[in-house]
Amino acid sequence: MSQYHPLSLDEAVALAQSIPGHFREDAELSVREIGDGNLNLVFHVTDEADGKGLIIKQALPYAKVVGESWPLSLDRARIEREALQIQHAYAPDLVPAVYSYDDELAITVMEDLSDHTIMRKGLIEGQEYPLFAKHIGRFMASTLFYTSDLGMNQQEKKLRVAQFINPDLCKITEDLIFEDPYRDSPNNNFSEDIRQDAEALWHDDELRLEIALLREKFLTHAEALLHGDLHTGSIFATPDSTKVIDPEFAYYGPMGFDIGAVIANLLLNYAAQPGWSLSLEELQARRGRLLQMVESVWRHFESNFRELWNRDVVDVTARTAGYQDMYVQKILRDTIGFAGAKMIRRIVGLSHVADIDTIEDAALQRQAKQAALQIGTALVRRGRFASSIEEIAAIAKQAAKEEQVTL
Amino acid sequence: MSQYHPLSLDEAVALAQSIPGHFREDAELSVREIGDGNLNLVFHVTDEADGKGLIIKQALPYAKVVGESWPLSLDRARIEREALQIQHAYAPDLVPAVYSYDDELAITVMEDLSDHTIMRKGLIEGQEYPLFAKHIGRFMASTLFYTSDLGMNQQEKKLRVAQFINPDLCKITEDLIFEDPYRDSPNNNFSEDIRQDAEALWHDDELRLEIALLREKFLTHAEALLHGDLHTGSIFATPDSTKVIDPEFAYYGPMGFDIGAVIANLLLNYAAQPGWSLSLEELQARRGRLLQMVESVWRHFESNFRELWNRDVVDVTARTAGYQDMYVQKILRDTIGFAGAKMIRRIVGLSHVADIDTIEDAALQRQAKQAALQIGTALVRRGRFASSIEEIAAIAKQAAKEEQVTL
Repeated sequence: MSQYHPLSLDEAVALAQSIPGHFREDAELSVREIGDGNLNLVFHVTDEADGKGLIIKQALPYAKVVGESWPLSLDRARIEREALQIQHAYAPDLVPAVYSYDDELAITVMEDLSDHTIMRKGLIEGQEYPLFAKHIGRFMASTLFYTSDLGMNQQEKKLRVAQFINPDLCKITEDLIFEDPYRDSPNNNFSEDIRQDAEALWHDDELRLEIALLREKFLTHAEALLHGDLHTGSIFATPDSTKVIDPEFAYYGPMGFDIGAVIANLLLNYAAQPGWSLSLEELQARRGRLLQMVESVWRHFESNFRELWNRDVVDVTARTAGYQDMYVQKILRDTIGFAGAKMIRRIVGLSHVADIDTIEDAALQRQAKQAALQIGTALVRRGRFASSIEEIAAIAKQAAKEEQVTL
Repeated sequence: MSQYHPLSLDEAVALAQSIPGHFREDAELSVREIGDGNLNLVFHVTDEADGKGLIIKQALPYAKVVGESWPLSLDRARIEREALQIQHAYAPDLVPAVYSYDDELAITVMEDLSDHTIMRKGLIEGQEYPLFAKHIGRFMASTLFYTSDLGMNQQEKKLRVAQFINPDLCKITEDLIFEDPYRDSPNNNFSEDIRQDAEALWHDDELRLEIALLREKFLTHAEALLHGDLHTGSIFATPDSTKVIDPEFAYYGPMGFDIGAVIANLLLNYAAQPGWSLSLEELQARRGRLLQMVESVWRHFESNFRELWNRDVVDVTARTAGYQDMYVQKILRDTIGFAGAKMIRRIVGLSHVADIDTIEDAALQRQAKQAALQIGTALVRRGRFASSIEEIAAIAKQAAKEEQVTL
């Protein structure tokens, strides 16, 4: 069955049954295809008798976005699987285990996480994740440090760079995040009630210069193996557990891109809160938690990263006095800039977030979009000159203060 | 004959004769091996009757440096040849033509440049190269621009990055330029009369921080396909013609690394001048020409680079107001920093330059080394904060003013 074709449900069950030692030999397996069908097939195979399961993810040779279809290399399944394996090696409790794979079929067989919820959904429902910042901070510190020139042999790292050359998926990022939102592009997708805000981006030369500089970093700074798409929809969570999935955008880029993605998506949720008919008290409590989480994500990243550096750095030169502080400052600045860019594109660009698009009241949805744009543009402007993570909360609070619609 | 083995003279002649349309069919070819034997064999095959010739370069599977031998991948012959072909495509008059190659034998057959002289030798002899700055400025602008995200499709560029992953040769650069000179490394190689100056580098935390930042750029900033070893020994020249050879260190790195290499080697020659029994008038004339050449190299690079950008940039985002100026400023700063690092390593590190090491008078040789170190360290310190190429001449003149030995 090795020539590429989309798996049937029966083939998925047969493949699952063939994984050694996973299911009982006489298990009666059931299967559901649970993917969104845009980029991948995702089969959930379970033994209902004992609740055991596994996931089979298969890449499709095209992407479907707003009805259009464009070809995508199946090699991204290899990239995603190899990234999963590397990330699992550095953070085994935070990444699903890979049980098996077939590169020709573009298939990865991996751990079943169906006891977890997509974190974006949980956040929308007001779920608290008290351990998330600690988990994701450690995930990012480990995976970024140990795949960089700081934490691994510099010659082996060069081979890793070649291994994760990922043109198709990088093009999506380059276009949708760093280009389309800043001009009148047919790929943009925004509601007419924020047209004025969108068009303002196209004529803001100061902002566009910062975006050009961020884009340049994304294109050229091969610092570490990034997840590459680390939003709250790529995270499965429970209050006790965090699992990072779907690294098909993995490639070597600037560390701040991943950290910025996490923070941007927390702030998009922050911007959306007034749309959800909460009491003022609950609204303020949730927003307070989100801003604390933003700072905590950074602080856990930073403390883990510095600890790994002090313990395991392989580069003699990196022990130079003052260098670690400058390196961390660079990551912080990149993080803030990329967080801003990632917020803006979710409002004006092709691909949105449910946090905001599911707000039913049109005026409140518009307000949430404007708040997100206000925070996003302020972060982009601030990034290159920032000196502390606390600047983010100040910017977010300012946007909240200026909200127009009465609750 | 395709399994790897070092070519014999007879095999070199047979290979030369087999190149279609180059030599007359009944030509009596003569051959000399003219390589330095450290890294490569170089055969010069000529037809003495009509003066026609060609070069066969074959990589050896090891490097011999100061008697030691370490293994080097033969893949560097492919990298060198592919870099030559790309550079020749963008600057056909400034790079030798490749006639043929054999990757298994690690062989490239190319244009004979025996009417040219190695520029380092010419400079030592006081030869003037009035067109050099113009030529090398155009060479660097074209090869760097068109291999970067500015001048080529960004997805194809990523494949190029993978094509030029060059771990063995990069390791030489990383160790010998950015690491060994700044600690008590067995790879260092300096005369006892400058021990104090060498040891001062090991304890200069401010300087070492700048070196760590330059090293980070070298390791991570995949801006353009660099030559990677662009010193005056990699350039064949006459007063009318310039040919850039030997790009076996080619890889994707920061543009300023190549420009800095050219400038460093002009300044090493500048530092050496008092060692050559010149009249004061001739000394001053030569030094004046060298400083003019340094500025002119940069200015020709910059004007060509901006012209290519304005005409051929493929990246929409790069047209943002103010971006080109910031990009050029970044290259200038990198150029100055890398120039400094390249000077320091030629005095304290493993590999020296004939400009200085052939000075017979010990005191004058020591003075030249100290001047080179003074200029080199000042450039490294200045790089990150520089705003004009003229700062280099000011630094070089200051070093000349402080020379101790009376002429």
